[in-house]
Amino acid sequence: MNNSLEKIVNLCKRRGFVFPSSDMYGGFESCYDYGFLGTLLGNNIKQSWWKNMTQYRDDIVGIDASILMSPRVWEASGHLTAGFSDALVECKKCHHRFRKDYLKENKCPDCGGELTKEKKFNLMMKTFIGPIENDVATTFLRGETCQGIYMNYRAMKDAMRLKIPFGIAQIGKAFRNEITPRYFIFKTREFEQMEMQYFVSPNKTEKKKWFEYWKKERQNWYSNLGLKKENLRFREHSSKELAHYAQRAVDIEYKFPWGWDEIEGIHDRGDWDLSNHSKHSGQDLTYIDTETKKKFIPHIIETSAGVARSFLAFMVDAYTEIEGGRTTTTESNKEKETVLRLHHNLAPVKIAVLPLSKKDSLKKITKEIYHNLRKYWIVQYDEASSIGRRYRRQDEIGTPYCLTVDFDSIEDKKVTVRDRDTMKQERINISDLINFFREKLE
Amino acid sequence: MNNSLEKIVNLCKRRGFVFPSSDMYGGFESCYDYGFLGTLLGNNIKQSWWKNMTQYRDDIVGIDASILMSPRVWEASGHLTAGFSDALVECKKCHHRFRKDYLKENKCPDCGGELTKEKKFNLMMKTFIGPIENDVATTFLRGETCQGIYMNYRAMKDAMRLKIPFGIAQIGKAFRNEITPRYFIFKTREFEQMEMQYFVSPNKTEKKKWFEYWKKERQNWYSNLGLKKENLRFREHSSKELAHYAQRAVDIEYKFPWGWDEIEGIHDRGDWDLSNHSKHSGQDLTYIDTETKKKFIPHIIETSAGVARSFLAFMVDAYTEIEGGRTTTTESNKEKETVLRLHHNLAPVKIAVLPLSKKDSLKKITKEIYHNLRKYWIVQYDEASSIGRRYRRQDEIGTPYCLTVDFDSIEDKKVTVRDRDTMKQERINISDLINFFREKLE
Repeated sequence: MNNSLEKIVNLCKRRGFVFPSSDMYGGFESCYDYGFLGTLLGNNIKQSWWKNMTQYRDDIVGIDASILMSPRVWEASGHLTAGFSDALVECKKCHHRFRKDYLKENKCPDCGGELTKEKKFNLMMKTFIGPIENDVATTFLRGETCQGIYMNYRAMKDAMRLKIPFGIAQIGKAFRNEITPRYFIFKTREFEQMEMQYFVSPNKTEKKKWFEYWKKERQNWYSNLGLKKENLRFREHSSKELAHYAQRAVDIEYKFPWGWDEIEGIHDRGDWDLSNHSKHSGQDLTYIDTETKKKFIPHIIETSAGVARSFLAFMVDAYTEIEGGRTTTTESNKEKETVLRLHHNLAPVKIAVLPLSKKDSLKKITKEIYHNLRKYWIVQYDEASSIGRRYRRQDEIGTPYCLTVDFDSIEDKKVTVRDRDTMKQERINISDLINFFREKLE
Repeated sequence: MNNSLEKIVNLCKRRGFVFPSSDMYGGFESCYDYGFLGTLLGNNIKQSWWKNMTQYRDDIVGIDASILMSPRVWEASGHLTAGFSDALVECKKCHHRFRKDYLKENKCPDCGGELTKEKKFNLMMKTFIGPIENDVATTFLRGETCQGIYMNYRAMKDAMRLKIPFGIAQIGKAFRNEITPRYFIFKTREFEQMEMQYFVSPNKTEKKKWFEYWKKERQNWYSNLGLKKENLRFREHSSKELAHYAQRAVDIEYKFPWGWDEIEGIHDRGDWDLSNHSKHSGQDLTYIDTETKKKFIPHIIETSAGVARSFLAFMVDAYTEIEGGRTTTTESNKEKETVLRLHHNLAPVKIAVLPLSKKDSLKKITKEIYHNLRKYWIVQYDEASSIGRRYRRQDEIGTPYCLTVDFDSIEDKKVTVRDRDTMKQERINISDLINFFREKLE
């Protein structure tokens, strides 16, 4: 099973999706950098989420809050107390540290040594503002992006004239001092969240309705972008598992190579956050319903997804190996082939433009087509090695369409477009290409 | 002059472009949050930069590196030594702190007290990885995004088969513990950079050519997006001013309300970064030219822009007040009007869709148009208050087109489209709207 994660990691490194951070210095603490293809895939995931959550809807606006916030935010939210801590144990012999809840036995998994009693370890990452390091100057890198949303709830409501139920969406980095980061980009100390906070009335029936609505909406987002339904499931948290702010929590889980694991959480945060911020800041966060004249602190249904977790799920789901290769007239190679069956919206490169040979007459017309198409989409030009190898290079990174310019193209003004999945080849008029791809890709 | 900055700040807050961070707790240390319109404007700036720097070019790829990096990166780059420090003085009487180079006199500008001798203060923001705070666990939030590019230079060159001259572009957050943040979002401790590193041969003529090329390209980017030419200029750094890594530096300056100030730097960083990283890591970063067989450490021409600085320059440049208002048949109001003449590519909302009245028959057809258009663009629906007031609300946030649906629309299937700048009104067939706006906006 881990074999399959290893294949993804290898592909990511070899083709420039993801590299270990500070690699020249031996890497650094589970940090990762995204290469060009990885950045494009990540951007496509974020853009799809953002469009679905804001642009296509009547009821949600977006924000982009700062990573550095007042430490008073984290006092009020409960993140500086035991609620946002992991239980840590240390081996008395080899001094390795472990999260208590990940251990099955009471002996060190590395050397069999005896373990210390558990100590609580807060996950917030500390930094200092200004020239002096002391308590006054101390603050934290945000441990979750949603607090930035609560800080702007009232200002946004007023500036945008929002009426309940409404949502505020945000994409941004958050930081947690995890003791045991793991599974490649799945669990890291620096990570990017896509969070939406939906403000609703405290009415129980209303809340339940929206909770179910958002479970479904978010599951649909993943399956509409190609994740196989059998690899997705919901998991309801037991009352013991619930985070300190949550009244109810359901994870959307994906079937990763190491087993089912969380890619998104839907949470009923009740009025925990707004009530606490109101109490700690002395500000009134009451909402007044203009129709019913009712006053209340809104309750919050949260959808909280991770960019890297989605990224990894989409990669795992799309990754396909074909033993013996796929054969067409131009592809007679019999090696194993890798095809990354990413959804068109997610594929980092949409079209590859390939001259059949390096002859100048072909290159000229091919470059013209390339320059024209890249005004609209991410397009790669590739003239190196055989056409079969170039097809496979594109299949491996998930490019939906390869466009080949041959010697006939100069005469008949047509090119061959090959579909990544069906491998069907079509002759298309050069003058029709923009419309052809608009229909296929948008 | 500051009056004009104040007007921008007010507009930003009132209409939901920018809010002070942690506002409920009295704000926090020059941190700012972007509301929906500000986030959209920021995204448009970043997208334009990204497309111009990667998608539309043959020679540049992008990456997205992590904010947390190995501290050894910052040792090698010279950021932990005096090179990346500000000289700080403190008033002996009121204990306020100032940057030495901002002071004109040797007395405290706040109380006239005597100042201490200067102390060097390093700008890197410290944090700790793992459960123990000590030197081993210490690292820094990146002080510039470009170091992430140098870390990935070799891996990207190999994975993407890049040949000199080539560039690597990146957009991301960086952090500097500035003593005196100022001018709203212009100079803040947390900020977002758009940096591109262009790797060239060490040949002096080549380098000069590319330096001049990038000066021009980057200036054009600003003026193509609407910044008035008379508000842009170059300023060459004197040798005394040069940063520790720079052989040459030219700022692109914008004429802000407080005077000319930097919005972007073009730097010749020579082989400072790659040579130092090669030395400190023991890794070979030599580039071999496959044609000439020459071996060398590439030199770097850097273009370094700030998202918030561009944001502020675009806002200042677009902000227009019209005394007595603008009059058309439907706009007879004579108050002062504000028009934000943002370039179409930058405008947060592209189209406003307005029913002439709240009658159900009009609302239905208007909503249909709204739902259809927002598949392509950011569109706002607004039915509240008079049509003149709604026009002005859209003018103030820079919406290029207002589309009004009236009672004739039900019969003739046409709507009125009003241009923000010319105020010309056109009747357009509803079925032609997508093509009409595609032509206008893309």
